[in-house]
Amino acid sequence: MSTTDIKAEPGLPFIDISREFDAPRELIFRAHTEPALVRQWLGGGTYEMVIDRWEARDGGAWRYVHRDGEGNEYGFHGVFHGAPTVDNMVQTFEFEGAPGHVSLDAMTLEEHDGRTTVRIHSTFQSVEARDAMVESGMAEGMNAGYAKLDALLEQLKTPVA
Amino acid sequence: MSTTDIKAEPGLPFIDISREFDAPRELIFRAHTEPALVRQWLGGGTYEMVIDRWEARDGGAWRYVHRDGEGNEYGFHGVFHGAPTVDNMVQTFEFEGAPGHVSLDAMTLEEHDGRTTVRIHSTFQSVEARDAMVESGMAEGMNAGYAKLDALLEQLKTPVA
Repeated sequence: MSTTDIKAEPGLPFIDISREFDAPRELIFRAHTEPALVRQWLGGGTYEMVIDRWEARDGGAWRYVHRDGEGNEYGFHGVFHGAPTVDNMVQTFEFEGAPGHVSLDAMTLEEHDGRTTVRIHSTFQSVEARDAMVESGMAEGMNAGYAKLDALLEQLKTPVA
Repeated sequence: MSTTDIKAEPGLPFIDISREFDAPRELIFRAHTEPALVRQWLGGGTYEMVIDRWEARDGGAWRYVHRDGEGNEYGFHGVFHGAPTVDNMVQTFEFEGAPGHVSLDAMTLEEHDGRTTVRIHSTFQSVEARDAMVESGMAEGMNAGYAKLDALLEQLKTPVA
């Protein structure tokens, strides 16, 4: 299993993420744009994942809720800027537990020899908001989600019997 | 006429703009959300302003084109994140002459004694993109646009005879 590389340079409001997957980029793109696939891995961990909307098109809205075992709900939402492509998928992101703090994510998928590197450049409205995101346990959440994505991609690669 | 205050701290990807207007914030909000009003001031200067879309709602898209006297066209587009309010109007922004560079603008309107301060916090995906925006003559464009907005607000404040 690959590890997720997360860079957060001190004093700047960016997070740069990269992670390699053993799958062509078209499959990874599907796993990021088709709600029935997104719900199987995004967020990872033990949360129940409920997707309200996942409209992967220019101006499309997205929203999902994570529910933990005690009934607590954590909502997230945003919109897509431009039509998502394998070369550029741009979304706004807001955690409803900290309303008014919006970030901007841009994802690119780079394929070599059937393996794909996912790169995400996240931009925050302040260095403080970026630091809060890094300290929120995001690395753990991303690694758990990407481990589920590894498994989902294996299923998608296997022809149905 | 008020002047526009533009702050761009070295080494950070932000631009902070503030400008006072002699009008209540509801009028300024209308001038930013109703396309028939937006087209009368945004961009300012001598460009012809053509608004393709200005859907000031959550997930709404916006796009406009500036045409100069020689027929050159400069397109800009983005989407609205969340429903715009006087306290928070959040939009993505992309200049079609530099595709792939997206920024995130958040505007707040603060009213005291019938006068309103517009504050915009712009966040860029890199310090280089921020610097390029500052050097593009944006201050001149904003001042010209805001002078037109001053005049438009005077009209909107005057009861129709």
